[in-house]
Amino acid sequence: MLTTNPFDDDKLHEECGIFGIWNAETASAMTALGLHALQHRGQEAAGITSWDGEHFHTHRAMGHVAGNFDRDEVIRGLPGRVACGHVRYSTTGETALRNVQPLYADLASGGFAVAHNGNISNALKLRRELVRRGSIFQSTSDTETIIHLVATSAYRTLLDKFIDALRQVEGAYSLICLTPEGLIACRDPLGIRPLVMGKLGDAIIFASETVALDVVGAEYVRAIDPGEIVIVTEGDIRSIRPFAPMNPRPCIFEHVYFSRPDSIVDGASVYTVRKAIGAQLATEAPVDADLVIPVPDSGVPAAIGYAQQSGIPFELGIIRSHYVGRTFIQPGDKVRHLGVKLKHNANRALIAGQRIVLIDDSIVRGTTSLKIVQMMRDAGAKEVHMRIASPPTRHSCFYGVDTPERAKLLAAKLDVPGMNDYIHADSLAFVSIDGLYKALGQERRAAVRPQFCDACFTGDYPTTLTDQDDLGASTDQLSLLAERVI
Amino acid sequence: MLTTNPFDDDKLHEECGIFGIWNAETASAMTALGLHALQHRGQEAAGITSWDGEHFHTHRAMGHVAGNFDRDEVIRGLPGRVACGHVRYSTTGETALRNVQPLYADLASGGFAVAHNGNISNALKLRRELVRRGSIFQSTSDTETIIHLVATSAYRTLLDKFIDALRQVEGAYSLICLTPEGLIACRDPLGIRPLVMGKLGDAIIFASETVALDVVGAEYVRAIDPGEIVIVTEGDIRSIRPFAPMNPRPCIFEHVYFSRPDSIVDGASVYTVRKAIGAQLATEAPVDADLVIPVPDSGVPAAIGYAQQSGIPFELGIIRSHYVGRTFIQPGDKVRHLGVKLKHNANRALIAGQRIVLIDDSIVRGTTSLKIVQMMRDAGAKEVHMRIASPPTRHSCFYGVDTPERAKLLAAKLDVPGMNDYIHADSLAFVSIDGLYKALGQERRAAVRPQFCDACFTGDYPTTLTDQDDLGASTDQLSLLAERVI
Amino acid sequence: MLTTNPFDDDKLHEECGIFGIWNAETASAMTALGLHALQHRGQEAAGITSWDGEHFHTHRAMGHVAGNFDRDEVIRGLPGRVACGHVRYSTTGETALRNVQPLYADLASGGFAVAHNGNISNALKLRRELVRRGSIFQSTSDTETIIHLVATSAYRTLLDKFIDALRQVEGAYSLICLTPEGLIACRDPLGIRPLVMGKLGDAIIFASETVALDVVGAEYVRAIDPGEIVIVTEGDIRSIRPFAPMNPRPCIFEHVYFSRPDSIVDGASVYTVRKAIGAQLATEAPVDADLVIPVPDSGVPAAIGYAQQSGIPFELGIIRSHYVGRTFIQPGDKVRHLGVKLKHNANRALIAGQRIVLIDDSIVRGTTSLKIVQMMRDAGAKEVHMRIASPPTRHSCFYGVDTPERAKLLAAKLDVPGMNDYIHADSLAFVSIDGLYKALGQERRAAVRPQFCDACFTGDYPTTLTDQDDLGASTDQLSLLAERVI
Amino acid sequence: MLTTNPFDDDKLHEECGIFGIWNAETASAMTALGLHALQHRGQEAAGITSWDGEHFHTHRAMGHVAGNFDRDEVIRGLPGRVACGHVRYSTTGETALRNVQPLYADLASGGFAVAHNGNISNALKLRRELVRRGSIFQSTSDTETIIHLVATSAYRTLLDKFIDALRQVEGAYSLICLTPEGLIACRDPLGIRPLVMGKLGDAIIFASETVALDVVGAEYVRAIDPGEIVIVTEGDIRSIRPFAPMNPRPCIFEHVYFSRPDSIVDGASVYTVRKAIGAQLATEAPVDADLVIPVPDSGVPAAIGYAQQSGIPFELGIIRSHYVGRTFIQPGDKVRHLGVKLKHNANRALIAGQRIVLIDDSIVRGTTSLKIVQMMRDAGAKEVHMRIASPPTRHSCFYGVDTPERAKLLAAKLDVPGMNDYIHADSLAFVSIDGLYKALGQERRAAVRPQFCDACFTGDYPTTLTDQDDLGASTDQLSLLAERVI
Repeated sequence: MLTTNPFDDDKLHEECGIFGIWNAETASAMTALGLHALQHRGQEAAGITSWDGEHFHTHRAMGHVAGNFDRDEVIRGLPGRVACGHVRYSTTGETALRNVQPLYADLASGGFAVAHNGNISNALKLRRELVRRGSIFQSTSDTETIIHLVATSAYRTLLDKFIDALRQVEGAYSLICLTPEGLIACRDPLGIRPLVMGKLGDAIIFASETVALDVVGAEYVRAIDPGEIVIVTEGDIRSIRPFAPMNPRPCIFEHVYFSRPDSIVDGASVYTVRKAIGAQLATEAPVDADLVIPVPDSGVPAAIGYAQQSGIPFELGIIRSHYVGRTFIQPGDKVRHLGVKLKHNANRALIAGQRIVLIDDSIVRGTTSLKIVQMMRDAGAKEVHMRIASPPTRHSCFYGVDTPERAKLLAAKLDVPGMNDYIHADSLAFVSIDGLYKALGQERRAAVRPQFCDACFTGDYPTTLTDQDDLGASTDQLSLLAERVI
Repeated sequence: MLTTNPFDDDKLHEECGIFGIWNAETASAMTALGLHALQHRGQEAAGITSWDGEHFHTHRAMGHVAGNFDRDEVIRGLPGRVACGHVRYSTTGETALRNVQPLYADLASGGFAVAHNGNISNALKLRRELVRRGSIFQSTSDTETIIHLVATSAYRTLLDKFIDALRQVEGAYSLICLTPEGLIACRDPLGIRPLVMGKLGDAIIFASETVALDVVGAEYVRAIDPGEIVIVTEGDIRSIRPFAPMNPRPCIFEHVYFSRPDSIVDGASVYTVRKAIGAQLATEAPVDADLVIPVPDSGVPAAIGYAQQSGIPFELGIIRSHYVGRTFIQPGDKVRHLGVKLKHNANRALIAGQRIVLIDDSIVRGTTSLKIVQMMRDAGAKEVHMRIASPPTRHSCFYGVDTPERAKLLAAKLDVPGMNDYIHADSLAFVSIDGLYKALGQERRAAVRPQFCDACFTGDYPTTLTDQDDLGASTDQLSLLAERVI
Repeated sequence: MLTTNPFDDDKLHEECGIFGIWNAETASAMTALGLHALQHRGQEAAGITSWDGEHFHTHRAMGHVAGNFDRDEVIRGLPGRVACGHVRYSTTGETALRNVQPLYADLASGGFAVAHNGNISNALKLRRELVRRGSIFQSTSDTETIIHLVATSAYRTLLDKFIDALRQVEGAYSLICLTPEGLIACRDPLGIRPLVMGKLGDAIIFASETVALDVVGAEYVRAIDPGEIVIVTEGDIRSIRPFAPMNPRPCIFEHVYFSRPDSIVDGASVYTVRKAIGAQLATEAPVDADLVIPVPDSGVPAAIGYAQQSGIPFELGIIRSHYVGRTFIQPGDKVRHLGVKLKHNANRALIAGQRIVLIDDSIVRGTTSLKIVQMMRDAGAKEVHMRIASPPTRHSCFYGVDTPERAKLLAAKLDVPGMNDYIHADSLAFVSIDGLYKALGQERRAAVRPQFCDACFTGDYPTTLTDQDDLGASTDQLSLLAERVI
Repeated sequence: MLTTNPFDDDKLHEECGIFGIWNAETASAMTALGLHALQHRGQEAAGITSWDGEHFHTHRAMGHVAGNFDRDEVIRGLPGRVACGHVRYSTTGETALRNVQPLYADLASGGFAVAHNGNISNALKLRRELVRRGSIFQSTSDTETIIHLVATSAYRTLLDKFIDALRQVEGAYSLICLTPEGLIACRDPLGIRPLVMGKLGDAIIFASETVALDVVGAEYVRAIDPGEIVIVTEGDIRSIRPFAPMNPRPCIFEHVYFSRPDSIVDGASVYTVRKAIGAQLATEAPVDADLVIPVPDSGVPAAIGYAQQSGIPFELGIIRSHYVGRTFIQPGDKVRHLGVKLKHNANRALIAGQRIVLIDDSIVRGTTSLKIVQMMRDAGAKEVHMRIASPPTRHSCFYGVDTPERAKLLAAKLDVPGMNDYIHADSLAFVSIDGLYKALGQERRAAVRPQFCDACFTGDYPTTLTDQDDLGASTDQLSLLAERVI
């Protein structure tokens, strides 16, 4: 398959985006717009649940928000002033519609819908125990574990049941829950995945990123704090912090690649951070060259930073097709060698005879880098120097990011010179881990309690990994439990 | 909507058909064929679950078996030597895919799939109690109650849990359950809904009707007895009877209309019974006429019986379109008066100037009878005498049959002369209740412990109706509980 | 493929049905209903063209009328008081949408739409000449030849151009043409294919069969005469007969199988004729038996006639599935032997131990007869006697009927005893050709100028067959000319 | 409708892209890839015709190349070593499949398929004459006129017929024709629309732009000359020039917006030209500002040129959604004001408090400019100066470009100060016409015989406009002639 999907390439992928809104005349339409702005966080499926004061209404669909949630009959079928939604990236075989969120359950206290960004790292262990006691799971999703913990909790109120449930789970979770009593938003004690709050007139909004506030014209209020639960009810917003205080460890890769450059993540402009990483990279790894060329589109801000710092002109040496949002399956067998050209094309007239610095945000498997370097040489580049705006990606993520198994990470197998040999560049350099922290406004990475979760670079995981330790595999095992629905 | 769907007309409808097969090389293909033969028992959705020795595989689809379960990729996606399936008739708003059976759950003992024909009349009460204890329901189906009762039973073995569950439910159920340990078939203690067993080489088959055995070339072994559980495992078939013995009360309407004329129900040929009802009707309600005309297709066997008994020639005075299996939505507003003609057309050349006896199996709302009588008059019939091969239908069914609310049953509102006035016939007569029992080989209806469930004619319900009594409504209430999935 | 399509079996198939209406408020809705009643004449595609006084509007669709032409947006897209429509049966590879009728062309005189039942037997020769002169064909349909002949005719008025065109074509055609000047209906000089006229208030209707009048509540006026052209314009109906007078030769197979039993064809009730054929068959080929069993549904009227004449009781020994209007593709390979059972099932309880007479309307390849006889024996029949309500079908039709090549016609290869051996019956008899004419009210078949086209029985073709003679193949060659649209 | 389609916004649109290939093993797969690279020239429909030495095969589809022509069964259905293809942008109501190219006809000389980029400006007059002589048109496309002229030409050879036809047409055309005798490519005498030739091993390729050569790895040979016809046959490439020589007038807007920046158009690098226009603009219309911000994506090259010339830093102040390739229909009515935000979002953190220069390639209606300026102010920009990399667009195009009627062109209604008022910028300037020619390497625009067609800026049309002059409307009138196919 020759594909131009912008997200199937050699990147890590955020697995989810979430959005919730309380007290808006067109809650589900707002949610559809918010999810559209979060589409880069999950392209395979989307869902919205609304509450009209009496009933819950849900629509889930495989595919993009556009084409599914922009249809009038869908939005009319989701009435009410409260709604929450979810976009999802899925690994193969897991894309059954019943895994698409928001998940919903009829509890004794009434309906309960939940949208989850993150991953519960002891879900399998909890599930096994719940099934033993008679719970029946509808999905293979780790999120459903939370719902069953709430349903079977011995506490009296829904909020107490919810806190009881969260105290049993481990891992990363930003959650938005819709209940007849109110909208609940929360972030795990380490704040691994992002979550922000906004305001539009009388409406309160929660979303994974601020771009989802921008798209509906809402005002950014603040980020939800790690370990905080915010409950919005008729005429009241309450914040509680039921967990023991811990040093936060938000995901550093949100700043490197996941979040959109126009978002504000935990108070920092993503665009500004990426330019600062590029500038830092120019300082740490300078090169004598004619042109700074970004690998579009994710390498652009760092390339502008690198160009400004180094004084080498920024130029578009690689043109990305406007049509890469769609998968193009290679027709026939004989054209397989065409590879990367469907998505990217060299701007030959510019590049021929030049010494170029290529800027990309990260290297995962290295396959795309290899092809891009070759494309530059084919277009006549005299020298090709690759500069990467993050440290080498050496470890898998277990907190809601789709990473290849470690054996496929180029940086887990090779040192930097080895990687340079592999991609056939004239030189290769990565920004240092302390350089990355510097671009984020820190003096350096704190050795004992680092300011971010940077496990993909360092292997320093901020939580225990129960299912991993038990079984050598976590979410993958969940998929073995269930009925195959075809 | 002007429609030619053969099942949307003025009839009661069986709500489900079930099929299960153990130890066949092509279990799911066999199940698809069996369900196709049972399609008249449920046209709105179908599902098949197979077990390949390791995993369960399920495919569910709205619509007919043909067009869904005859696709190679579907059958290939349902591997294994064991399978069960279900066809379903659904009332409006309940047709969400997650209500389509077989229902499936991962229990602590492994996978458990169930296909159910019938209706649990205390499902709502049981569900309320289960939710209170933390069970989460995926569907609004009464069948799911059984699964949660099994999942939460305190007994040790799966079979004991299953019996424990059945002892708590009330109503009508023929069930086929697929488990890693074996295929389980059972029929409620009264045997309200039918279930038969067949054999094809080494394979054992269970099905709602014998026509599903015929279509795969299987041999009819016997009916499952009321209150019997048959467990088929590797190399063993066991039968147990865990309920206190009761007088059986199988549904008499299976003989009147539900079952196909080529089926054998509880030992009796449906075609022969229907002809006998027609003959009995000719004896009880003779008429001086020129032609006996069936309302096609369900009135044909009784009409042949009536004609043979009376000596009046049997003729096709009404032609049914070959294309009535499809819904034809009336295009435009101005053609609404065309009504019944899309489905039935008068054979004018035959009817003009004749005195005719029209034979139909039953009258529910009376709307079709009214139109058919008028069509006969428009075609020039001199006299139109209507004869019905069942007693007046006066009561709703709560055992898995789709009946209109009582207020819409013509016989609940009017006596026979009133009904005759309503349909504008020259005369109208129904077979007597004792006449019906006679055609079934009984001397008469036993007043104390009648031999059949004939509640739709007599109002004599063989079980308590807990949800009805509690709430004044049963399955309808279930639909209020849940999320609306659009 | 195991299929339950009622029309894919061992029968000849009429290839088209046509309908036209002038001056009705809901012309296109009426046309949709009329085509629905003619669906048995062509199941693969349908089309309607309307004229709103200014523009022509056309919708064509593969598949049935129901599901395509009963959608509000389709009917709203076909405005106007005049419309014509077409249903089509297609041979493999010819089903491209651009072959679906009505065909349409912008002529210098304005728009021109035509719906055609029949086949032009010199279409290929005419087409070759037209292309040589610069005409560009859009389809492979023989009907398009007529349009190009009209477009390039040297005559002045549209009607003269039309007559000029018809005088050059040879073969069978009933045509309905929509033009801004009026609705034109005509039938070829031999009247091979049927066409009737009806009336509904101020509206004039033309249709292949009277059932299409019945469905819209129209009154039957008369059949269009062979060689007659009827032109309906604002406030005027004219009839002209521009061809030299000939003895008509309408298709006799319309009475045997093609037309619906409730139609009146050229003045005769099809049901009554079929019963008369059955009675004639009982006289010509009596048998000592217990039951008369029709092969459903087409054998039923003849079986009633046979039973009434012979005194042997008529019984339903074969039950046809209600769901045969849909194709059921055999799932998997291992179940291929199940064959005919999906469509027909034996009524075992009735048949076991009996001597039966099976009545069918015709035998084409003999494959179905073979299976049905075997099914009766498997069900325990003591003797199986087959009686056929038409003479042996020995020749192909070139006038708009889908016939297999001669080599596949059982009667072209074997004499009657040989056919009996092939189908394994105890005896086999066909009605005689004179017996068939007798049932149609003739004394016998006229040897010199027979009263009907019976070429499929006798090989006596009423026209020359230019393309056949030139090439050894006719319409099949057309398909070789054109672009393959995939 | 709130939409994120990158091409529905305030731009002129090229209406077609064409591609043809001779003698390649996988001709249709190559054509699919080439069309994918030309997708920006037409997004509404695509088609490919192949020739396998015996038959022509065509597939046409509404929608993008990806999703239609990347399916294996489609490519397998287009066998052969020769193919041509077309992508099409369509105005409303014209999108019926039969207008999708390549158009095909069976001529007396054999099959003939044609793909056309451009517009015939006397098509209506020619069509009227052809219909009068008996030609029947299948489409409302001006291209079909050429085919009928070829079919009815009195010349003997196909090539002579083709030249005879072209001599009668007026307007803009780049054509690729597939015939059994060879592949024919030609460009109108003025060379208004582009066409290039490439080479890949033994295969010869023609395409609208060089990016379609790049995607298949082909070598760029040269542009086809204005007035040149190239005929590729087995073992031979011939070039003929059958028209009187004229000064070429290629479309200047290809350089401004239509062509991809990585294409070489008539020998010039589009990216380099656009940067040069930006630099010229910085010289002609300097401004004291903090940031140069491109309107993505089409304004980027000119913005880089402007930034480099002016020394003001280039920054991404507007982020374009990755998902703008899909239409997002605005859900509900209440969110209509959200407008442009779905497609573009302001990078607030960067812009707040800054004086910015916005660079766009052109202004058509002005609606997008108005919104973008407002978005910048909402994000806190202190000053917003708009600079446009083309002269004001004041006239409609009749040569295959979709332009709004003149009354909707902002520059046809207002002078530059008036336009500045309309879009609420602090200042507005356009590059001068001579400045544009300078960026293209000319000294200035030649007053008498200008080097380019720049009619959209100057109103100086290089051909007569027969249909316009006759009727006051051209292609729109064609659509009135034909049957509406719904």
